Amino acid sequence: LVPADLNGSRKRSDNHRPMHFNKITILGVGFMGASFALAVRQKRLCSRITGWGRSQENLRRAVRNGIIDDFEADAAVASKDSDLVILATPVGIFADIMKYIGRSLKQGAVVTDMGSVKGRLVYEMEALTPEGSFFIGSHPIAGSDRSGIDTAFPGLFEGARCIVTPTNTSDSAILARVIDLWERLGSRVAVRNPDEHDRICAAVSHLPHLLAYELVNTIADIELSYLDFAGNGFKDTTRIASSRAELWRDICLLNKENVVRYLDMLRKRLDQVREYLIRDDAEMLMKEFERASGLRQELGQDRD
Amino acid sequence: LVPADLNGSRKRSDNHRPMHFNKITILGVGFMGASFALAVRQKRLCSRITGWGRSQENLRRAVRNGIIDDFEADAAVASKDSDLVILATPVGIFADIMKYIGRSLKQGAVVTDMGSVKGRLVYEMEALTPEGSFFIGSHPIAGSDRSGIDTAFPGLFEGARCIVTPTNTSDSAILARVIDLWERLGSRVAVRNPDEHDRICAAVSHLPHLLAYELVNTIADIELSYLDFAGNGFKDTTRIASSRAELWRDICLLNKENVVRYLDMLRKRLDQVREYLIRDDAEMLMKEFERASGLRQELGQDRD
Repeated sequence: LVPADLNGSRKRSDNHRPMHFNKITILGVGFMGASFALAVRQKRLCSRITGWGRSQENLRRAVRNGIIDDFEADAAVASKDSDLVILATPVGIFADIMKYIGRSLKQGAVVTDMGSVKGRLVYEMEALTPEGSFFIGSHPIAGSDRSGIDTAFPGLFEGARCIVTPTNTSDSAILARVIDLWERLGSRVAVRNPDEHDRICAAVSHLPHLLAYELVNTIADIELSYLDFAGNGFKDTTRIASSRAELWRDICLLNKENVVRYLDMLRKRLDQVREYLIRDDAEMLMKEFERASGLRQELGQDRD
Repeated sequence: LVPADLNGSRKRSDNHRPMHFNKITILGVGFMGASFALAVRQKRLCSRITGWGRSQENLRRAVRNGIIDDFEADAAVASKDSDLVILATPVGIFADIMKYIGRSLKQGAVVTDMGSVKGRLVYEMEALTPEGSFFIGSHPIAGSDRSGIDTAFPGLFEGARCIVTPTNTSDSAILARVIDLWERLGSRVAVRNPDEHDRICAAVSHLPHLLAYELVNTIADIELSYLDFAGNGFKDTTRIASSRAELWRDICLLNKENVVRYLDMLRKRLDQVREYLIRDDAEMLMKEFERASGLRQELGQDRD
């Protein structure tokens, strides 16, 4: 499937061949899409960037702010003649978009995405991709608590992890090109199959989002005014709860098997800790907290 | 009990009387104790600061680094002749310390603390305080994921909330003095009874800590190597899990009635969300996430 050196985490490419796209189309010009546009522009990877999205006003502002060169009201028109089409909408509409733009894709066009769910969706997207064009899934793991083009910035992908998710039928030259693209934007690329991707992200991202949302809701149930006393600890723990609800609803539903399985593991742990508290088991509680504390310290305190 | 203007959040005092302590004793010279020392020094609120703690080596370093002026190997000797004694150890040993230092306290000495649990402990501390000296509980809500004197800094309390917890028997002049102290260090003081304090902190601090610890442990159970893919979201959500286990074991046990009650409320919410996922209830999931997202956005993204 994948050349051995691609099968895992890789160092930054030392590939000095030039990479250039004549036209890049960004479908969904929000925080992620706009940051991608700014990044490929800064690295001079393309001649022209066309946008498409729900809000014409937002697209007009993106042109005015120099994020995209132009936009189209129709996703298929926007994708026509494009060398690279990147899906930067909520994942829930990826398949519908692919169905709609498929026939407009030029021969050799590469389609990738920035979605947080892969798994079945990748196989579906591949099946929807017309002969002669290519889909390879990508997931740059970068700043999801922001939204909107005004906070977008070209350095978003620098140093961030990016998981690229080929399947058995992926074209290896196209895969290498997608990996190269992310590495040129400064990302630390790992190659994983779509199902393993979803397990990883359910664990380190989707479950934590669910938990952050429900922690905020629980405190509001207890007594809304208590939020006046939220310090940095609470703010950190729940920061991702300000992420867009629509986005995370889609993600959690699309990856629900993993999310529910891991949620059940968490619930068992919480039941266990509840028991320790009830019976004043200082020793077991200490063991629990020490294990977590040691593991978390290894990750370091700084944001990427 | 409390003058009306103290009964809630207050603006910074515009009190221009000088405040001066001849000697301040800090019992437990870690991150919090050392930051307190640096803060009172910066505001020129005392002539001399004496320390006491578990590790002589740490105390010696604190003297060398200009955090404290001197230290004693015995907490009672350290507290002798002190105008202000501040407990900055884990809360689990507060009562033992008070029993031990009580007879050494001078007439008019004020004892306060920086502990995260109040409730019964405050009544116990008051009962242990000898006639002629005074205990008033304080809880500055500030940076608990750090530890050790090397990261201590005098601005820790600037702009942070501080809950002061008098009881029916507290001396109102002493209470005013303790409030004044924290306000001079830049804190936004609120006065609450000890039990209300514990409900507030169980909600915005103790439960979130428990959750962060158990989230890290759950991910480690799933697959330790997944932590390599932890992005800023996961780092934020679990930052407080690197807090000292011993500290949070004590806190969770001392406040377990509230922590368990709120944990049960969270577990119910998680059960509910699990149901939404299982039955693909996009609408209810959206409602859940939107409610949390709106509430969290109101708190703002920045750390204090």
